[in-house]
Amino acid sequence: MKPLEIESLSFSIIDREAGKHDFPAEQWNIVQRMIHTSADFEYMKTICFHPKAISNGIKAIRSGKPIITDTEMAKSGIRKTETAHFKIPVSCLIGNEDVKQYAKKHGTTRAFAAVDLAADIMEGGIYVVGNAPTALLRLIELVKEKKANPALIIGLPVGFVNAAESKAELTALDYPYISNTGRKGGSNIAASVVNALLIMAFKNTII
Amino acid sequence: MKPLEIESLSFSIIDREAGKHDFPAEQWNIVQRMIHTSADFEYMKTICFHPKAISNGIKAIRSGKPIITDTEMAKSGIRKTETAHFKIPVSCLIGNEDVKQYAKKHGTTRAFAAVDLAADIMEGGIYVVGNAPTALLRLIELVKEKKANPALIIGLPVGFVNAAESKAELTALDYPYISNTGRKGGSNIAASVVNALLIMAFKNTII
Repeated sequence: MKPLEIESLSFSIIDREAGKHDFPAEQWNIVQRMIHTSADFEYMKTICFHPKAISNGIKAIRSGKPIITDTEMAKSGIRKTETAHFKIPVSCLIGNEDVKQYAKKHGTTRAFAAVDLAADIMEGGIYVVGNAPTALLRLIELVKEKKANPALIIGLPVGFVNAAESKAELTALDYPYISNTGRKGGSNIAASVVNALLIMAFKNTII
Repeated sequence: MKPLEIESLSFSIIDREAGKHDFPAEQWNIVQRMIHTSADFEYMKTICFHPKAISNGIKAIRSGKPIITDTEMAKSGIRKTETAHFKIPVSCLIGNEDVKQYAKKHGTTRAFAAVDLAADIMEGGIYVVGNAPTALLRLIELVKEKKANPALIIGLPVGFVNAAESKAELTALDYPYISNTGRKGGSNIAASVVNALLIMAFKNTII
């Protein structure tokens, strides 16, 4: 089988095993890809969408706005064909020398520092957190203070310390987010959400 | 909290919630890190270790042998401090021009072609499959034909088509592997196994 045939068969298995659900088509495209990436149907129960999340995400993508990730791993999981097509700069500042200096100076994590230093460039773009709760918590602060203004926050940190809590803070905001409840998430999951949006924007079939 | 404190607290939560188990310390270091990466305790039930897997992996790392991954995502999830310390070349051939040509010529997936073209360089090293069952199936063939001889195979592809089947073939071999049963896995999980081995090799506390 060719890779596209494998993907198509995988998606039909997911559809069959997921059974009946209430997700609109554009949300299902995202949930389906999260399950495809993780083989974990639990995301059907934990995913949360802000009502403007998908339309904002698609608009940002079609306008070639930046995508910024908290980890190199999330960055490398993002599809190249579509980001190249839309001329989207995809960046991750975590290894940046300025970020290291800033974190040292202010006694923060590098993930936190990377959010501060990306405050200006994320304007109208998509900020993707798949790993660091500290990044998501800082981003929420900046958004509340109107110091950062991304079109969409994909907040899916994984883990045992502050991951669930940071996501609960995010989903309490009236701000475009795609997130979930609980501890699960990850760079791969966050990248899969970006990829689902990229494909929808590219195929032009939905929205 | 500092990142190391967060990690340490996370591990103590994992230990507490995991409860009693029969994993020897060196295996638990790996399982614990898989759970840390995924927040998924199911790996406790599905993980499989070949008896020589960990000692072979540690030996390969301490000898600076190559680590080869099937995806850029797995590669970027591998810790840099330890690979630099041991002077380990970490590579992923999937985007390589020779691999693309080979896949086209032979009508294979690029993941399959990447295994064929890495057959010589993986000698004594660690081959990491976190995504593509076709890569793992091809690697199993080459190992059976004695055309490839890695010290350890980390076989953790995720998905709905051939992931579980390819892992069942791997764990039927008497060859050093770390793998699991079922559909779950992924580049992040595979990288977490490599990282647990790197840390054990580096800290010199076990084996």
